[in-house]
Amino acid sequence: MIKTAEGPAVTDPDPASCIASVQVRRFDVPLAEVLSDAKHGDHTHFELVTATVTLADGSTGTGYTYTGGRGGRAVAALIEHDLAPVLLGRSATDVEALYEAMQWHVHYVGRGGIASFAISAVDIALWDLRGTRTGQPLWRMAGGAGDRCRAYAGGIDLNFPLPKLLDNIRGYLDRGFDAVKIKVGQPTLEEDVARVKAVRDLIGPDVTFMVDANYSMSRDQAIAAARAFAPFDLTWFEEPIIPDDYKGYGRIAEATGMPLAMGENLHTIHEFEYAVADARLSYLQPDASNCGGITGWLQAAALGRRHGITVCSHGMQELHVSLVSGQGAGWIEVHSFPIDTYTTRPLVIEDHRAVAPDTPGIGVVFDWDRLQAAHEEMHG
Amino acid sequence: MIKTAEGPAVTDPDPASCIASVQVRRFDVPLAEVLSDAKHGDHTHFELVTATVTLADGSTGTGYTYTGGRGGRAVAALIEHDLAPVLLGRSATDVEALYEAMQWHVHYVGRGGIASFAISAVDIALWDLRGTRTGQPLWRMAGGAGDRCRAYAGGIDLNFPLPKLLDNIRGYLDRGFDAVKIKVGQPTLEEDVARVKAVRDLIGPDVTFMVDANYSMSRDQAIAAARAFAPFDLTWFEEPIIPDDYKGYGRIAEATGMPLAMGENLHTIHEFEYAVADARLSYLQPDASNCGGITGWLQAAALGRRHGITVCSHGMQELHVSLVSGQGAGWIEVHSFPIDTYTTRPLVIEDHRAVAPDTPGIGVVFDWDRLQAAHEEMHG
Ligand SMILES: [Mg+2]
Ligand SMILES: [Mg+2]
Repeated sequence: MIKTAEGPAVTDPDPASCIASVQVRRFDVPLAEVLSDAKHGDHTHFELVTATVTLADGSTGTGYTYTGGRGGRAVAALIEHDLAPVLLGRSATDVEALYEAMQWHVHYVGRGGIASFAISAVDIALWDLRGTRTGQPLWRMAGGAGDRCRAYAGGIDLNFPLPKLLDNIRGYLDRGFDAVKIKVGQPTLEEDVARVKAVRDLIGPDVTFMVDANYSMSRDQAIAAARAFAPFDLTWFEEPIIPDDYKGYGRIAEATGMPLAMGENLHTIHEFEYAVADARLSYLQPDASNCGGITGWLQAAALGRRHGITVCSHGMQELHVSLVSGQGAGWIEVHSFPIDTYTTRPLVIEDHRAVAPDTPGIGVVFDWDRLQAAHEEMHG
Repeated sequence: MIKTAEGPAVTDPDPASCIASVQVRRFDVPLAEVLSDAKHGDHTHFELVTATVTLADGSTGTGYTYTGGRGGRAVAALIEHDLAPVLLGRSATDVEALYEAMQWHVHYVGRGGIASFAISAVDIALWDLRGTRTGQPLWRMAGGAGDRCRAYAGGIDLNFPLPKLLDNIRGYLDRGFDAVKIKVGQPTLEEDVARVKAVRDLIGPDVTFMVDANYSMSRDQAIAAARAFAPFDLTWFEEPIIPDDYKGYGRIAEATGMPLAMGENLHTIHEFEYAVADARLSYLQPDASNCGGITGWLQAAALGRRHGITVCSHGMQELHVSLVSGQGAGWIEVHSFPIDTYTTRPLVIEDHRAVAPDTPGIGVVFDWDRLQAAHEEMHG
C-alpha cells in the first residue's frame, strides 16, 4: 500500500525546506516462526508503516513505526488523512513545533494509542531530514555522549521448551551479547523460576539477565514472583503488571526491592510523568516507534534522567542504538523482529557494545524491494 | 465509504446469534456554521463512523462514534481490519466478553485514543442487537431507574460575540431547557467574567449554569478563574486544565471549592480511575462514543457512583439520554452537532427533562440517505 499526500503552495520564508509531500507505505512482514508472550498471544508477523517526507528541494526523510500485526492500517490512515495536512507547506526545520502541532491537531482522537504510532513515524522522518540536511548522524543529534551503548538480546520466547530456550540464549552469547532477557508468565511460578534458574546457570554470574512478564500478573503474583526471582541476580523485572497501574508498580518495588522496568506501553509524556511519579521504576524503556518518535523519546529520556531513572529502550534497536548511545544511557533491547533483513545496515555489535551508524540522518535505510517481496509473499 | 467484512463459518452453540458481517460507514457531516472552542480551533464538520453488525439470522444492530472532523478514517480502518476479525463467527450475546476481547486484541496499539472510538462504535451496535433481541429499550438495559433525565444545552460558542451568545442562550430557554453551559477561555479573564455575568443576568438565579474551558488554562489561571466565577453560582467548571493533569484538578478544587467536571477526554477505565482517585471531581462526564461504548460508559458510571461523583455525559445526547435516565444520574449535555437532522427521532424535551426513546435497542436510527447526501454535499 502506497499513498501520497501532495502539498499546497509553499508559504514558508525558506521555500526549499517546505514539505511538499508525505508518502505512507504499510508492509506485513512475516516472522521466521510463531512467537508468543504472556499477553499478546501468538505473533505471526509484524507491520511496518513508513512515512517518507519530501521537501520542495527534493530532499527526503523516512521514518517508521511498528505494530505487532494489528492497527497498521489505522496508523497509515491517520498519517495520510490527518497528519499530512498539518505538515504540507510548512517548513520541516522546526521539528519540535511540528510535533506539537500534530499532537494538538489530533488531540480529541489522540493522546496516545494509534495517534502516537502515527506521529512517531512522521517525527522520525523529520529527524532523518534534519540529520541529512545538517550532516549529522542521529547519535550526535541525540546528545552526542557517545556512539555505542550496552545492549541485551531478548526473545519472544515464552512458548519455547527449555532446551530451545537455552539454545536461544547460547545463540545470543555467540553473537556477542553480554546481557540477555527472557519472557516469564508460565502457568505456574515454579515453571518460571525453573527457567530463570536454568538460564542463570547457563550464563554464569557475569552476564546481565532480565525477565519480562508482559503484565500477565496481578500485584500479588508479581510480588511473589519478584521474591522467587531474587536469588538469580536479575538486573530488572519488566512489566510485571498492567502498564496502567503505576501505583501497583510502586507497591511491588516497595514490597520486594526488585528493580522494575517499564515504558514500552507509555505513549504520551503524561503517561511517563505518572510512571516516574508513582511507579518507583529503576529503568525507563521508551520506544520511539510508539511514544512520539525521536522528539517524544528525548522528552521521556529527559524526564527519566531528572528522576534518576536509567533510560533504556524497547525494540527498534536499529534506531534506539543511536538514541541510547547519544544520551549515554542504559541498555537497548535487541528484539527478535527480523528488521535487519530489510535494512542496509544490520546491527553492529563490537566488544559487547552496539554501535550507532555514523551516516547523516537516522541511519536506518530500508530495502524497499525486500519489504515489498515479504509483504507480497505473506499475501500469497 | 462503506466497507463490509464477511465472516467465517459459524462455530457457536447458538448459530443464529453468530456475527456474520460488520459493515463500516464514514460520513463527513457539515455544521450549520463554523464553531470554535478554546483548544480545538474552528470546527467546520464532524465525522460520524457507523458500525452495523449483522447476525447469521439476519438481525442487525448499528452503533457509531463521532470525531471533531479528524481521525475518522483511522477509526473506520481499525473497525474493518482489526476489530471485525475478533467478532466474526462469535456469538453477539456476550457483549461484555466481546468488549474485553476487542480491548486485548488491539492492546498494543490501543489503550485509549482511536481504538476507544472504534470499540465504542462496535460495542454500541452489540447493545442495539441486545435490545432488539430481548425487546428492551436502552434505558431499561442501562439500569432502568427511569426514562427521563435532566439536560443542559451547551454550544461551541467561544467565538460568538456577546449579543449572539445571549441570543443563543434565549434559544435554549425557548426550547425548554432549564440548564445552560457556555465556553470560556477568552484572551482575558475579564472577558470571560463579563460573559458569565451577562449570561447569569439573562437567565436569572433559577436556571442551572455551567462553564467549560476545554483545558485552555494553566493550573494558576484556572484557580484565578474559579475564584472570579464564584459569584455566579456555577454548577460546575468543566475541564479548566488538560485532562491528563488529574492532580492539578485536585489542586484547583482544593484551592477554590469550585465544583469541577471532566470525562469527555477519558478513554479507558484506567483513566477514569486516575480521575476519581486524584481529581476531586464533583461531576464525571463519560462519553459512550469514545470511552468504549455502552459497556465502557456503564463501567465509568459505576466507578463514579462508588466514589460519590454525579455521573453526567458529554455530547451524543440521543444515546446518553437513555444511559443517564436508566442510571438515575445527573445531566446530559445537549451539544450543537446537528445529529437530530440525521435520525428518525429528534431529542424530546418535556417539562425541562429529556425523554429516552422507548423502542427496543439503542433507539437511535439513522436516516442513511440524509447522511449520504450531507457527506456528498461537503465533497462537492
Ligand atoms: Mg517488554
Ligand atoms: Mg466539554
